Amino acid sequence: MSLGLGVIGCGSVFAGPYRAMIGRLRAAGRVHVSAVYDVDRVKRHGAAAHFDIDRDLRGPEDVIAAADVVLVLTSMNEHGPLARAALEAGRHVLVEKPMATSLLDAAELLELADAGPGLLVCAPHTLLSPTFRAVHAAVRAGEVGDLLTARARYGWSGPWWNDWFYGPGGGSLFDLGVYNVTSLCALFGPAQRVTAMVGVAIPEREVNGRLIGVEADDNAHVLLDFGEARFAVVTTGFTMQRYRSPAIEVYGSEGTAQLLGDDWAPEGWELWRNADGAWRVFPESDPHWQWTEGLRHLVECVETGRPTVTRPEHAYHALEVMLAAQAAGRDGVARGLDSDFPDPVYDSEWVDLDAERRAHDRRSHDGL
Amino acid sequence: MSLGLGVIGCGSVFAGPYRAMIGRLRAAGRVHVSAVYDVDRVKRHGAAAHFDIDRDLRGPEDVIAAADVVLVLTSMNEHGPLARAALEAGRHVLVEKPMATSLLDAAELLELADAGPGLLVCAPHTLLSPTFRAVHAAVRAGEVGDLLTARARYGWSGPWWNDWFYGPGGGSLFDLGVYNVTSLCALFGPAQRVTAMVGVAIPEREVNGRLIGVEADDNAHVLLDFGEARFAVVTTGFTMQRYRSPAIEVYGSEGTAQLLGDDWAPEGWELWRNADGAWRVFPESDPHWQWTEGLRHLVECVETGRPTVTRPEHAYHALEVMLAAQAAGRDGVARGLDSDFPDPVYDSEWVDLDAERRAHDRRSHDGL
Amino acid sequence: MSLGLGVIGCGSVFAGPYRAMIGRLRAAGRVHVSAVYDVDRVKRHGAAAHFDIDRDLRGPEDVIAAADVVLVLTSMNEHGPLARAALEAGRHVLVEKPMATSLLDAAELLELADAGPGLLVCAPHTLLSPTFRAVHAAVRAGEVGDLLTARARYGWSGPWWNDWFYGPGGGSLFDLGVYNVTSLCALFGPAQRVTAMVGVAIPEREVNGRLIGVEADDNAHVLLDFGEARFAVVTTGFTMQRYRSPAIEVYGSEGTAQLLGDDWAPEGWELWRNADGAWRVFPESDPHWQWTEGLRHLVECVETGRPTVTRPEHAYHALEVMLAAQAAGRDGVARGLDSDFPDPVYDSEWVDLDAERRAHDRRSHDGL
Amino acid sequence: MSLGLGVIGCGSVFAGPYRAMIGRLRAAGRVHVSAVYDVDRVKRHGAAAHFDIDRDLRGPEDVIAAADVVLVLTSMNEHGPLARAALEAGRHVLVEKPMATSLLDAAELLELADAGPGLLVCAPHTLLSPTFRAVHAAVRAGEVGDLLTARARYGWSGPWWNDWFYGPGGGSLFDLGVYNVTSLCALFGPAQRVTAMVGVAIPEREVNGRLIGVEADDNAHVLLDFGEARFAVVTTGFTMQRYRSPAIEVYGSEGTAQLLGDDWAPEGWELWRNADGAWRVFPESDPHWQWTEGLRHLVECVETGRPTVTRPEHAYHALEVMLAAQAAGRDGVARGLDSDFPDPVYDSEWVDLDAERRAHDRRSHDGL
Repeated sequence: MSLGLGVIGCGSVFAGPYRAMIGRLRAAGRVHVSAVYDVDRVKRHGAAAHFDIDRDLRGPEDVIAAADVVLVLTSMNEHGPLARAALEAGRHVLVEKPMATSLLDAAELLELADAGPGLLVCAPHTLLSPTFRAVHAAVRAGEVGDLLTARARYGWSGPWWNDWFYGPGGGSLFDLGVYNVTSLCALFGPAQRVTAMVGVAIPEREVNGRLIGVEADDNAHVLLDFGEARFAVVTTGFTMQRYRSPAIEVYGSEGTAQLLGDDWAPEGWELWRNADGAWRVFPESDPHWQWTEGLRHLVECVETGRPTVTRPEHAYHALEVMLAAQAAGRDGVARGLDSDFPDPVYDSEWVDLDAERRAHDRRSHDGL
Repeated sequence: MSLGLGVIGCGSVFAGPYRAMIGRLRAAGRVHVSAVYDVDRVKRHGAAAHFDIDRDLRGPEDVIAAADVVLVLTSMNEHGPLARAALEAGRHVLVEKPMATSLLDAAELLELADAGPGLLVCAPHTLLSPTFRAVHAAVRAGEVGDLLTARARYGWSGPWWNDWFYGPGGGSLFDLGVYNVTSLCALFGPAQRVTAMVGVAIPEREVNGRLIGVEADDNAHVLLDFGEARFAVVTTGFTMQRYRSPAIEVYGSEGTAQLLGDDWAPEGWELWRNADGAWRVFPESDPHWQWTEGLRHLVECVETGRPTVTRPEHAYHALEVMLAAQAAGRDGVARGLDSDFPDPVYDSEWVDLDAERRAHDRRSHDGL
Repeated sequence: MSLGLGVIGCGSVFAGPYRAMIGRLRAAGRVHVSAVYDVDRVKRHGAAAHFDIDRDLRGPEDVIAAADVVLVLTSMNEHGPLARAALEAGRHVLVEKPMATSLLDAAELLELADAGPGLLVCAPHTLLSPTFRAVHAAVRAGEVGDLLTARARYGWSGPWWNDWFYGPGGGSLFDLGVYNVTSLCALFGPAQRVTAMVGVAIPEREVNGRLIGVEADDNAHVLLDFGEARFAVVTTGFTMQRYRSPAIEVYGSEGTAQLLGDDWAPEGWELWRNADGAWRVFPESDPHWQWTEGLRHLVECVETGRPTVTRPEHAYHALEVMLAAQAAGRDGVARGLDSDFPDPVYDSEWVDLDAERRAHDRRSHDGL
Repeated sequence: MSLGLGVIGCGSVFAGPYRAMIGRLRAAGRVHVSAVYDVDRVKRHGAAAHFDIDRDLRGPEDVIAAADVVLVLTSMNEHGPLARAALEAGRHVLVEKPMATSLLDAAELLELADAGPGLLVCAPHTLLSPTFRAVHAAVRAGEVGDLLTARARYGWSGPWWNDWFYGPGGGSLFDLGVYNVTSLCALFGPAQRVTAMVGVAIPEREVNGRLIGVEADDNAHVLLDFGEARFAVVTTGFTMQRYRSPAIEVYGSEGTAQLLGDDWAPEGWELWRNADGAWRVFPESDPHWQWTEGLRHLVECVETGRPTVTRPEHAYHALEVMLAAQAAGRDGVARGLDSDFPDPVYDSEWVDLDAERRAHDRRSHDGL
């Protein structure tokens, strides 16, 4: 019997790749959409019509009541409360980034997920991509020796379709930098200290044809201290028109590994080992990989009872990093960090399942 | 009549590219070596024999007395005092990086150079490379719009031939990071604030076959604030086995420019302009360019009476940045910066002269 | 009212991208599938079921009778006769490569298309890709001066799913080389002379788990003479495991242009102009472009009454080239060529329409 | 006791890298220049003055009489007779490409070298570069399986300093294509058959500021048949403004190897093995390698009594290929080839010696 999905928030994040991913899972008979809600009537009705379901639910609580798995795709301030409500109701939850806007709210989600029956999967889902997994595996296998230093970058010229990116709670660090922070911590382990420079480099922008004042950071560099003088930098911003450089570079005592493209859209990876005296350039193995893969993963874990690869504790840590970076950006003082998270475990059953999926997707792409 | 060069310090920095550059200037009849000194008798005698001059000078003062142009190529602690003595004696001076180890000493050099007859040229000389100049010209011409953010990196696995790199006064920031700091400030203008993470990631190393304890930083990330929320990061260390990424990436409001290779050994540059919709990839125009070019430049300026392109104030600023970065690395608190320097001016006469040199070098390379 | 498509041949070529392209055109209300036929009952029934139409047509003639536009996707020997029958019946025809297996049959198709009401579109459709069009436009605008020499390559390790590729009428030149031949001739104009080396380099292969003897060429180099000592080479084969080189390189008197990726799946292009002193690297503008685009093009031309950009005369010429290359491969004697074709004309209305499509596709991709 | 070198022909080939190589061998005390001759008095006197030797030798015979090793660096027509005279006199000979202009003359050189005491080394010397050797070793070790097909290219916009390149006996095939032919045959073994398209694509050129008519080919594609349907193509010409593609691509049944840069100036190499699923990108290991390395090699072989790695039979075969290609270019008929040559043997002693040289050169480069 297929899982009933409930979608809260039917804006661009939903209408984009999530809807496509839902479509694929539906086609495979694994899910159906049982409820949708958006405060915007037009969006709500559009989504309901698309799935041919009740278009007049009164609120998120109706979605939670009607679903096995709840997708929280609203604006950021509501992420925490909605995820909480869904977990309290015993539902499985996928929540977009950030999982909450305060550490306190985020901590509650961790506790609820820990205590209750519902699984909690937090975006970003980039740790699931085959290319990131290959980099992680190489690093864990010691291919580059001990990690010593790293760089990551993700930026672009910035969204023009919605001004919330530039208002309180928005900003490039939360919207973009979160990917790099998540990836680097997955490779190095939890950060212990952070400092940053964060600010507004372009004070006015045209959004939807209207000039607006920018209040949230659009330019940021974050330094991470992983202990024992092992450091990394995240460069992010709505201040980069185009780049031609690796997304993630990790430098170890015996070599270098780097992920190309962007961490949410990898284009292969590269490995230098001193012992080889050559770069190994791995072409992208899954060019159709989507950053909404976390939904499929959650569905799989619900189906099989297996634990999720991505852990809410990891998302919590990334949140602590970003809040501390913002604080350091304001007063120039580095912050210690308290939280911890377990190293991602890619169990072989899941890896096999995913390899199968990729083979199947290739056929789908060619054949349908 | 050719200029008499006096060399103080005949170690690896001298015996490397400086000697080769001197050789080329001698062959052109523009300089002769009139005096050399090194505290190490073997090095002193070797250099004297090479140039067939007096091998038993008693100290730097003899070199200063006998030279028109003094090259200060000693270990770092002596840079300031020796440069000072040479300027006080009215000599032209080329001093290796850093110009001094304290801001006070460096400030004195600036005053002396300003007041006296001698020209002062401070390493690094990377601003003189045709490729850096092309990037600088593109940026000043507005090809990428207003500069907003940037990254630079320079590192490697570290020297194995001399343990002073790893002792007090050494470290990757002063040895390597100085290039990136100099280049970025040449593009953005003076930095206003700095913070950093700096430390020892590899506590023990083999140097000359002997295991030593590392005391100076071998791993550093430095954040620079150029005002108006325009930032850059410098990543440096004896902690990088190999990279495959641009040396310098500058991101502006209309495009991106990046210098490939290393800033002391460029391998071309790239320019993205939104208006083009394409990367322009410029092959390296001067693959034989040497980082000792500052000596030729100093000689030219002495010969022609023209001001030097690279300014001591720039080197002073880089020194202030690095000292502040080290301090911030210790206590995690960002530092404001006070110093200023003028934008490099590449006057057209010099540019023409250099173009001629490059044409001639090419012939030399083919022909001799 | 939407156009009725009739599909003859429901094998892998159909079940692949053609079905996907039909799906998109159906979703836009521009076509419906009115008839399908395949000699294989399972494939026939599968296709009919997919479109929910009559699954028991008795033969191609039923398809032709029931369709506005006939897609000939059968094995190669039937291409000519079926396309002929469809044109004689006044239908529009898309025929897969090669349009026929003899020049005589191909010439008849040209005459029928010329005389009758039906449009004839012959694969490959690579001239329609935005990236190829950009290269063609740059060349015609004189960006690289007069074309003088060129290289093209398309190969891989070869199909493992069907042994007809390795039997009479198959081979790498007809299956793969046809793309390069078509592209180069589109840039240089008709070839005047051809010679080649063609053969079987891997005499036995495993296909579908069974070892077979290879009879058709799996390895070929074809030299093309475009007159006035302007030459090109096509390298193709089921003998190439992987490459990392441009698909097409054209060298002119003032510069170089090259298409990256494969000509049926471009990954951007590059332009060197002596006047620039730089490579312009154009990222792929349409990564979702499909090589079945010819179907959409045919539908558009039928809808609007505009002439097709790709001309059957061009396909005829490519066929003449390949047949002559095979003959030259047998006896080592170069062959003159007789046929001619007009330069592709990308009328601005079509270009605009396609730009709109690309914008729309991007939305589709993001949005569903 | 150092070897006495005799130089016949003191034009640009001599004054370029050969003089630089001689300089290095002299500095190491391994050779001295005992005699020079050029029909041009100015060149003769210049060279003699450079080495401080007799400037008024009456002809090549005086050089041969006075030298242990004779370098034949004249224009092409004299290569054969001069090399012959030197071998007959029992001298060791280095002859620039081509070793002779007729197969008959070349065959005589082979016989003389075989019978007499003198060693014969024929340009090009590209087989000696560490990068080519790495590719050769990988291929011989079976890293890419059986070689099946290949491409090579070497071209540029053409010389502007000497019109003999464009007159009888000149042309791009002999001047440039010879490198590719030599390299490909070193990898595949002797070719069995050849065809080509060869011609003059730019009938008039400016050379030394004067417009000249071009008589020798400036545009060529040569197809090589190595037996068992294994083929390669060489693309060469004074018709290529710039490229961005591998110099040599060899495709085997299990992978691909390619040499970057140009074969006389390699910039690293790349290896794909199906078993790896990655490209191995080897950075250039010897960026200072010079194409005049054959001289050092000859000196070493004379010193040590070891056989030369490059064999005159290989140069003979390349000559046969090129003459046959020109003939095929005229009448369009492929030619069979008769000659053979042994696979290059890189004995380990020589390889070790060369590794030592590279280490030493690096020091030289840094240190002098």
